[in-house]
Amino acid sequence: MPFHIAVGPNIRKSPYFDATVADGVASFSVYNHMFIPVHFGDPGKEYDRLINGVAMWDVAAQRQVELIGPDAAVLAQYMTSRDISEAKTGQGKYVPLCDHDGTLINDPVLLKLADNQFWLSIADSDIKMWAMAIAAERDFDVQVVEPDVSPLAVQGPKAVDVVASLLGDWVRDLKYFWFKEADLDGIPLVVARSGWSQQGGFELYLRDGSYGTELWNRVKSAGAPFDIGPGAPNDVERIESGLLSYGADADDQANPFELGLGNFVHLDQKDDFVGKQALQKIFDDGIKRRRVGLVLSGDPISQNEHPCSIILDDEVVGTMSEAVYSPRLSKNIAIALIRSDIVDTQDALVVDNGDGRRDAVIAKLPFC
Amino acid sequence: MPFHIAVGPNIRKSPYFDATVADGVASFSVYNHMFIPVHFGDPGKEYDRLINGVAMWDVAAQRQVELIGPDAAVLAQYMTSRDISEAKTGQGKYVPLCDHDGTLINDPVLLKLADNQFWLSIADSDIKMWAMAIAAERDFDVQVVEPDVSPLAVQGPKAVDVVASLLGDWVRDLKYFWFKEADLDGIPLVVARSGWSQQGGFELYLRDGSYGTELWNRVKSAGAPFDIGPGAPNDVERIESGLLSYGADADDQANPFELGLGNFVHLDQKDDFVGKQALQKIFDDGIKRRRVGLVLSGDPISQNEHPCSIILDDEVVGTMSEAVYSPRLSKNIAIALIRSDIVDTQDALVVDNGDGRRDAVIAKLPFC
Repeated sequence: MPFHIAVGPNIRKSPYFDATVADGVASFSVYNHMFIPVHFGDPGKEYDRLINGVAMWDVAAQRQVELIGPDAAVLAQYMTSRDISEAKTGQGKYVPLCDHDGTLINDPVLLKLADNQFWLSIADSDIKMWAMAIAAERDFDVQVVEPDVSPLAVQGPKAVDVVASLLGDWVRDLKYFWFKEADLDGIPLVVARSGWSQQGGFELYLRDGSYGTELWNRVKSAGAPFDIGPGAPNDVERIESGLLSYGADADDQANPFELGLGNFVHLDQKDDFVGKQALQKIFDDGIKRRRVGLVLSGDPISQNEHPCSIILDDEVVGTMSEAVYSPRLSKNIAIALIRSDIVDTQDALVVDNGDGRRDAVIAKLPFC
Repeated sequence: MPFHIAVGPNIRKSPYFDATVADGVASFSVYNHMFIPVHFGDPGKEYDRLINGVAMWDVAAQRQVELIGPDAAVLAQYMTSRDISEAKTGQGKYVPLCDHDGTLINDPVLLKLADNQFWLSIADSDIKMWAMAIAAERDFDVQVVEPDVSPLAVQGPKAVDVVASLLGDWVRDLKYFWFKEADLDGIPLVVARSGWSQQGGFELYLRDGSYGTELWNRVKSAGAPFDIGPGAPNDVERIESGLLSYGADADDQANPFELGLGNFVHLDQKDDFVGKQALQKIFDDGIKRRRVGLVLSGDPISQNEHPCSIILDDEVVGTMSEAVYSPRLSKNIAIALIRSDIVDTQDALVVDNGDGRRDAVIAKLPFC
């Protein structure tokens, strides 16, 4: 349904906003109280560039929450279930954050800039004020601030060539999730080998928003020989790849075990962390739901507008969060949270995404 | 600029979503991770209904955060700078929430449903997880949950007639900010005399989202004799009335004193609250900025897309958050945060909202 989005001062613009408008952004969403591009008018081509070429995305809405000060590492560890004691300076770590009930409330990447300085590159929830509350209530000696840092993602198999031509061949040696500081003719960057796709690429963390348009255009120029084009975090590719979309896949009771993040819950670490007790109990009691893939019958599906119930014999046994048509698989595929006892059966599931009932078969993640 | 908004499962729909679509909603924003209507295609008429008639608004995105349990009142008091010890069951209170640095992070209405049960009807930030963190870290015996409660606002001078015809003449006796539970032929409601305008009206807190379309249509029918129409929280009226828009007017350093909420900061109360020490220091050091009105020169202004700097003699002395043309005043009016030492002067200020530089004169709030 073609609704307009209101552009007003209550929602922040990214430093790349003007550049994305100049390049024809057609659809926005809102993420961390900021506009984030969704597509530029040709989703098929944007998907193709991500899979076979290279795309550039304004992901400044992945705001950074900086922990800085003597207790920064203590706070970082207390915020996440993952044991990060071995994290090195220059390394990023995917760190699920849970509340005290063990419910997932964000799944950022943690960047260790120094022993006493970390960034959390967050999904769509207000982690800064949550972290401040915890730090203050526990009397940690740490500042929690939002720095002027705005990631621009370069994603796809040719991303490495684009970023190497921009910054030098040293970027080819960056390991996955590691990062380095860099200077692009005066534009201050942190360059990380990361991004919300499985097609490879980089995130350029711009450290001065006033260079937004300049950085966007530098990447665009460097990418021109590789047919770079603007795009956005891609729902089709992320479902094919089984990536978690916190805002879509996690409901307000979802714990990391059922979301498939159990590998990042280290209950036997020596340090305490938020939700440890609750997560131990959830683990001991047994996991009630599982995040799985679904393959849906019928004609190519349009992306669903809201979560849909999954039905087995007239009973709701789960929720489908997001469904798309995969061009690579020539199938309708989806992500779902479903009752654990259903997962390994071959029962006849049905979902209704608003365009009629479709048969559904459980599939392993990732699809690709 | 006419951009589309992406409607996908990562942003929640209100229980009134389908009804607003049926009634022609044209533009949405996102608020508390939910779609919220911005206008229905005729902003002038929608303003006129609010000022002279009656309008109905889907404000389900004012999510409720419920505090329930033995320590609910203790947590509620600890969360706000306002002394709420005198609040009665059935009474609402406007309660600024600050972080531990004394920065405003939300300005909800607190509804006291019982001695051990409160709702916070929140502005656009994730208060539920913030409140949970504080409750857990302080070992308060309280649950923090999001109930299935979705406000529908009926606003304007004829709102009382509409709500009386729907629910009975008892609503005429409800005092401002007080509320009562009610049942509309099986639709469970809390009926409050409140709303984000100064034109009078009610908020119907629907306690079961499955009745969304039915409640919307019941209000629409009851309002038909009064020419009710759909609308949304109105930026023109709120600026005329000087109402705070947390998401627009408060930057990430704004404290309640400079925002004009000093009356709700009770530093001499016996109980501690989040940010008390920081607010005492801010108060003792003197307030550096003030929230004021501005009158801008020139032709009728289009609403600005982002905050704009306020210039005095080539120096930035403040930020204009939002500017509109007021039909009632036949003037361009705005809200700004400006350096305290400028406020009582008659200096020649200038702002540039993107359509050229305009002279600005400081004005008292409210305008109307």
